Amino acid sequence: MGRYELEYPKDATNLVKRHGERGVYALQKIHELINSSQLIHVSFNMPNSPFPATLPMIGQMGSFDRPSASLGDPLDLYIHGHVSSRLFNLGRGADQEGLPVCCAVSHVDGLVLALSAFNHSYNYRSAVLFGHATLVEDREEKLYAMELITNSVVPDRWRNSRLPPTNAEMQSTSILKVKIASGSAKFRDGGVADDKHDLKNEEALSTVWTGVVPVYSVMGEPIPGPYNRVNLPEYAKEFFDEFSVGNKNNSLEAAKKKNES
Amino acid sequence: MGRYELEYPKDATNLVKRHGERGVYALQKIHELINSSQLIHVSFNMPNSPFPATLPMIGQMGSFDRPSASLGDPLDLYIHGHVSSRLFNLGRGADQEGLPVCCAVSHVDGLVLALSAFNHSYNYRSAVLFGHATLVEDREEKLYAMELITNSVVPDRWRNSRLPPTNAEMQSTSILKVKIASGSAKFRDGGVADDKHDLKNEEALSTVWTGVVPVYSVMGEPIPGPYNRVNLPEYAKEFFDEFSVGNKNNSLEAAKKKNES
Repeated sequence: MGRYELEYPKDATNLVKRHGERGVYALQKIHELINSSQLIHVSFNMPNSPFPATLPMIGQMGSFDRPSASLGDPLDLYIHGHVSSRLFNLGRGADQEGLPVCCAVSHVDGLVLALSAFNHSYNYRSAVLFGHATLVEDREEKLYAMELITNSVVPDRWRNSRLPPTNAEMQSTSILKVKIASGSAKFRDGGVADDKHDLKNEEALSTVWTGVVPVYSVMGEPIPGPYNRVNLPEYAKEFFDEFSVGNKNNSLEAAKKKNES
Repeated sequence: MGRYELEYPKDATNLVKRHGERGVYALQKIHELINSSQLIHVSFNMPNSPFPATLPMIGQMGSFDRPSASLGDPLDLYIHGHVSSRLFNLGRGADQEGLPVCCAVSHVDGLVLALSAFNHSYNYRSAVLFGHATLVEDREEKLYAMELITNSVVPDRWRNSRLPPTNAEMQSTSILKVKIASGSAKFRDGGVADDKHDLKNEEALSTVWTGVVPVYSVMGEPIPGPYNRVNLPEYAKEFFDEFSVGNKNNSLEAAKKKNES
């Protein structure tokens, strides 16, 4: 409250060009979007290939040096993986600065169906972070990131699972830490918006359904495994329910927002 | 039926290394996954930047030369965008072969919650295509791709919207065509699977909930816009319902599959 909101500085890398008014640079918004994404698309270049490569990974924003940092503060992105995977081998081999990566997330919140095919759109939220990835070597920092990432799948899951990790588990788990260089987000919300000439087109108006179809992700009834012996704990049940309800509400709110003119 | 199933040849670019048994190279499976994704993460390199860039785009597999081609045939990926966007400018400026891109999609189908944090996983389906992108200049091919992509948002939507596109609309819409060089997909399904030593751990077994939580995307009740005058047509209603039911069933089926041993 009262404090200014930190933003990633705009430059050639992160600038939202098309529909610049939809661009967002606030750390808080971008980090929230990353943290609420079940998968992050991590892209990097491979030696001897003309193509960037993209892997879907699990990750979370955090600060090992200042674990109490808020989402609007400068943070690192911790990414979880297996020690032998391609990305982690590159992260290990990269020079001091680290491997340049681009980390992208996006959520579709609704289909926007207009009179003209041209004015069809999605309501969506997307974010991208650019940074340099290095392998986390420090055991304490690795444990910090493993806890952070496990708790992003289900809050409080870490201390509610079998602890501590065995040595073999520690050795075959790798954590990449991305030092963020810049980032941006892009949102579209609101209702349908057609061009003036189409709004006078009686034939189109009398035949084409226009509006927004909400789209959102939900969690279904949990399915206990073959060796499960315990009831679903409250901490988990609440989270699953909130996930579905929160996503639905978010999608409906987006659809009902006023369009920018 | 009876015909062999085409596969992308394995090479250093597309090989699924970690959990190689989860790798899929069949064109049919990969193309299905791309076509059922509302967004595709398209990555490419920018001049004068160390980082790859990633944009969420709408696209579909197709063949302009042979529109009747099936999903298991060699196809191009058509991507929709605005003429001024960064990717399309690069696609226009790129040499004959085109701009090297990586196109990635992924769906989370469930949370797999194990006794150990280490054995937590997702059920998921992901695919990646590598190829060279060029701008579609031919008007007929552009119209083919626009129809293909619009109908991927809602089947049959193209001929149920205001047609034909105006000259201004045609000029400010760009289509990228990605000639595919290779691709692969990776799936994880099944139930929870812990290590032998954890299955003998009475304390863990008596305190940790284990199983699968289905995750899937749904469409909510369509919200008519302010100038809508028509009832929601059957072709659209059926699609919205099938989207939700299909995704739910897919998620439940994945959870119930037998684990590979």
